[in-house]
Amino acid sequence: MNIKDYILSLGQEARSASRQIASATTVQKNNFLSYLAEEVIDNKDEIIKHNKIDLDNAKKAGLDTAFIDRLTLNDKNIQLMADGLNQIEVLNDPIGEIINLKYRPTGIQVGQMRVPLGVIGMIYESRPNVTIDAAGLAIKSSNAIILRGGSESINSNNYLSSLIKKSLLKSGLPEASVQIIELTDREAVTELIQLGEYIDVIVPRGGKSLIKKITDEAKVPVIKHLDGNCHIYVDNNADLDMAINIVDNAKTQRLGTCNTLESLVIHKDIAQAFLSKIDKIFNEKNIEIRACQKSLSFLSNAKKALDDDFATEYLGPIISCKIVDTLEAAISHINQYSSGHTEAIITNNHANAMRFLREVDSSSVMINASTRFADGFEYGLGAEIGISTDKFHARGPVGLEGLTSLKYVVLGTGQTRK
Amino acid sequence: MNIKDYILSLGQEARSASRQIASATTVQKNNFLSYLAEEVIDNKDEIIKHNKIDLDNAKKAGLDTAFIDRLTLNDKNIQLMADGLNQIEVLNDPIGEIINLKYRPTGIQVGQMRVPLGVIGMIYESRPNVTIDAAGLAIKSSNAIILRGGSESINSNNYLSSLIKKSLLKSGLPEASVQIIELTDREAVTELIQLGEYIDVIVPRGGKSLIKKITDEAKVPVIKHLDGNCHIYVDNNADLDMAINIVDNAKTQRLGTCNTLESLVIHKDIAQAFLSKIDKIFNEKNIEIRACQKSLSFLSNAKKALDDDFATEYLGPIISCKIVDTLEAAISHINQYSSGHTEAIITNNHANAMRFLREVDSSSVMINASTRFADGFEYGLGAEIGISTDKFHARGPVGLEGLTSLKYVVLGTGQTRK
Repeated sequence: MNIKDYILSLGQEARSASRQIASATTVQKNNFLSYLAEEVIDNKDEIIKHNKIDLDNAKKAGLDTAFIDRLTLNDKNIQLMADGLNQIEVLNDPIGEIINLKYRPTGIQVGQMRVPLGVIGMIYESRPNVTIDAAGLAIKSSNAIILRGGSESINSNNYLSSLIKKSLLKSGLPEASVQIIELTDREAVTELIQLGEYIDVIVPRGGKSLIKKITDEAKVPVIKHLDGNCHIYVDNNADLDMAINIVDNAKTQRLGTCNTLESLVIHKDIAQAFLSKIDKIFNEKNIEIRACQKSLSFLSNAKKALDDDFATEYLGPIISCKIVDTLEAAISHINQYSSGHTEAIITNNHANAMRFLREVDSSSVMINASTRFADGFEYGLGAEIGISTDKFHARGPVGLEGLTSLKYVVLGTGQTRK
Repeated sequence: MNIKDYILSLGQEARSASRQIASATTVQKNNFLSYLAEEVIDNKDEIIKHNKIDLDNAKKAGLDTAFIDRLTLNDKNIQLMADGLNQIEVLNDPIGEIINLKYRPTGIQVGQMRVPLGVIGMIYESRPNVTIDAAGLAIKSSNAIILRGGSESINSNNYLSSLIKKSLLKSGLPEASVQIIELTDREAVTELIQLGEYIDVIVPRGGKSLIKKITDEAKVPVIKHLDGNCHIYVDNNADLDMAINIVDNAKTQRLGTCNTLESLVIHKDIAQAFLSKIDKIFNEKNIEIRACQKSLSFLSNAKKALDDDFATEYLGPIISCKIVDTLEAAISHINQYSSGHTEAIITNNHANAMRFLREVDSSSVMINASTRFADGFEYGLGAEIGISTDKFHARGPVGLEGLTSLKYVVLGTGQTRK
């Protein structure tokens, strides 16, 4: 079978499975999650054995330490995979919920029912733990899923797939609900993202250039985010200690996450007081400041920022800094340079806070809190597929609901249209 | 300026206007709707004069009566345009609403705020009343909009545009919030639907082939529906009189709408009783029945259905008919042939009704009601941009909320991430 036909057949089987799993009971879905968690723990040694083949190949191929780290399955992260499944198990079943059911003057009741999207195509790097995580999220939301992990993790993924299939059978769910693309050719991805008839959404994870390429070529909706160039605006009405505390946390608690602070915007009236304090902290923590002309004079050790700096997600020990004259200028600067991920204002002024909340066009907008809170678990979603910076469909951290759709339901007692 | 640059400049101006109108007050937006309604009525004679140029050109070009009908503006539909604006005015402002605001254990409050999508691109046939309608819906939902009506309506649209601009200015809203593409070249549409950076959603209206072409080529999300091949399933537990009444209404109340019944699915145990009655009604009303082999014997005047008939939206006096052995077979037939628009079950059996509601994968699923209710006004949305048969973002009748997005908001009092 050629690649096109192979992917087509996966798509057809997934569509057929999705029709069955749409009516799976909550008990069946929870049983699957529980069985799979057991299988993962019971077969830890086998998982590690299969993973070792991938690791040996990766080392032979000279892949770097960070890559090898992400590829490695060990006692600790195998336990985390099982824990993750148990966490998904205790979440409420999102499917079948009916919201906003109201009587209309004609006597019909109109509401919206939450239903699965159908078939998910997931494309991710060589991180085999994602295979288990994604299978769990898809099944809990009654979707079928086709998984395409990085080619370097193929042995790990194929073995994990056998545990998934066993758990699906044991819980009475169709085996084709979770399928793994066993071909490592890149063409398989190209075919997958064009399969509009059989796939309802593509979720890509990995490098920005890969995600951009997938988005450009896909004939299927994509849930994605490219960049997290997050801003904090320190208003002239900010509590100075709170501002220092939040900015320090947002920048330095973890340097490499998508909700890490990358750019500071400061009202001119508080600039000197705020910058002299944060300057010391950032110097101690070796955070380089790339500053606008105005802010340079308040900083001991900063470099002059180029225009590109304001648009950069550093994912490292660098931050850009810009002084503005007004709240309006701050909002305008942020809407121009931000990637639409997460932005926060520090202020005690209610009107300023509310204006920032409304006018900043990002997937998460915060008042007096660290941007590091932008996360599915912190928001109470219980699990996270990823973070979407698009405005269409899911926006911000995407949990199980992002893998569902609301259809209208009408309950009548014989009504006809006049 | 070439077409590409012209469309680009419209996009840039729309993006800039969308930032301003995002913070427009409810009063400003309602004033615009009220002013525009007045302008439309006050300038009725001028509107009719400009429309006459389009009508004369269309007649010279030999366009058909139905086309001329849609193009015509007269006293009656000018009044309807004004009424439509007044109806939008009284709807609640959807923007700024915060839902699901809840405290998290960390002390932050997390909720979702409804905000505009940003810039809408609307592509429609030569129906100049849509120009006014779309402008009203866009402004009420704080979006900027770029309108591209059929080239045969360009004189009418340009004049209406002058009334829209006047009303925008009078209410203090940016003039570029509503822009009309003044070029009639097709290339303008091609450029518009590729302008991902400046346009957030495309709403196409018109023929199926045009919508399909736009969807295939767009680099921007599209809200659309292609087909309304709507089904009613008459269950063996149906009330016979109710079934007859609803099927008659759904098929014959209006033949050419997208929520008109196009295909009947009937449980074998009720087939004889039901078909003998509906046969008489459809014969009287000159509705042709294209029937499966089994149902032919219960019908006096039916044709044998080909497989294609079950997939056809007739938009006319024809209906297809299929007898099934089980509810499961009915659901499976419907999910195979339906276009995902609207389907109904007629039954007194609760379990069957609930199973149908859950498993039929369409944008509206009904129990004991006519498919003709699938409509924004009937559902209480107050206004309708169109009906979406996609599962992503808006599904079913799309009102003002379909032109909005939910972003996360976090209200803190100084919290940092541990």
